Amino acid sequence: MSDRAGVAAVNQLTAEEFVLTFSRVVESYPAAAAQLCQLRPFRSTQHIVDSLAGFLESLAPADQEEVLRLHTDLAGSPADGDEGRLTAESAREQRAAGLLSLSARDRQELTQLNHRYKMKFGFPFVICARENKVATILEGLKTRLGNTRRDELEAGIAEVKKISALRIRELTQSTQDNL
Amino acid sequence: MSDRAGVAAVNQLTAEEFVLTFSRVVESYPAAAAQLCQLRPFRSTQHIVDSLAGFLESLAPADQEEVLRLHTDLAGSPADGDEGRLTAESAREQRAAGLLSLSARDRQELTQLNHRYKMKFGFPFVICARENKVATILEGLKTRLGNTRRDELEAGIAEVKKISALRIRELTQSTQDNL
Repeated sequence: MSDRAGVAAVNQLTAEEFVLTFSRVVESYPAAAAQLCQLRPFRSTQHIVDSLAGFLESLAPADQEEVLRLHTDLAGSPADGDEGRLTAESAREQRAAGLLSLSARDRQELTQLNHRYKMKFGFPFVICARENKVATILEGLKTRLGNTRRDELEAGIAEVKKISALRIRELTQSTQDNL
Repeated sequence: MSDRAGVAAVNQLTAEEFVLTFSRVVESYPAAAAQLCQLRPFRSTQHIVDSLAGFLESLAPADQEEVLRLHTDLAGSPADGDEGRLTAESAREQRAAGLLSLSARDRQELTQLNHRYKMKFGFPFVICARENKVATILEGLKTRLGNTRRDELEAGIAEVKKISALRIRELTQSTQDNL
């Protein structure tokens, strides 16, 4: 079964290879990969996913905020140079959700809502693009703007877990394929 | 906020109180509570939930099977004395799903499917009763009977996580209320 072979390959990486491979699981936060590396060997891909979730929940609130702040705005305007700063993973995920080919109107609405969100909470709106489409993202942003800061910290970290889980599944598979 | 107060109360329990309180989070498997106790302090209820999930995924397959085998059959027939062996938590959860007030026909079908499942896999069919109703449980049993043993071990553990998450949320809340 591919899951077992993929996890075996992940367990066999050197620490350096592991951290390099998993450094982008949590956007721009390689400390997560270093921590995950300590928790090997893993028994399954789900074991990696749950271990990372436990790590994210173990962080102090200030560190959780830092994790969110390391995310760029969704569909950042090319004029701001934001699109150029997207990581390859993020660009691919946002493209799949239609966020890199927005109508002028949707882009303007998203930019304004992102701005209001960041002004209110101090960190950007984070959502798992691959599990959403433009309409649900705009809707989610409007709803979440009404939340408390603590609820949004929790909601943002929950989205980071979803993004990471999808990336972990891909990485585990590709680690096996590269052997 | 109630979550923070509940978690603070959980963190303040003595080890003995903690293990006693959380011993039924994973049905008849107090070792899970002993392990969770080592991972305190927790930052949130979600942190407890994710830590338990990581623990369950870290178990060797033989231990995961043992966790499943410690569950009684869903809606065990009173004639077999199974209903009398249900833990209080399980009885309450199964009652909510309608499993303790089945029609004779549904009960017979469930008993037969449970039996086939246990014969095929060597452990009972486990499903989070509170997230299902009788019809979806019968449907789930029929579908899952077609799975491989390894897939069912994974599916069963995923259901144990859902059951445990609901129990953890209740326990954290009631630990606070009992202070």
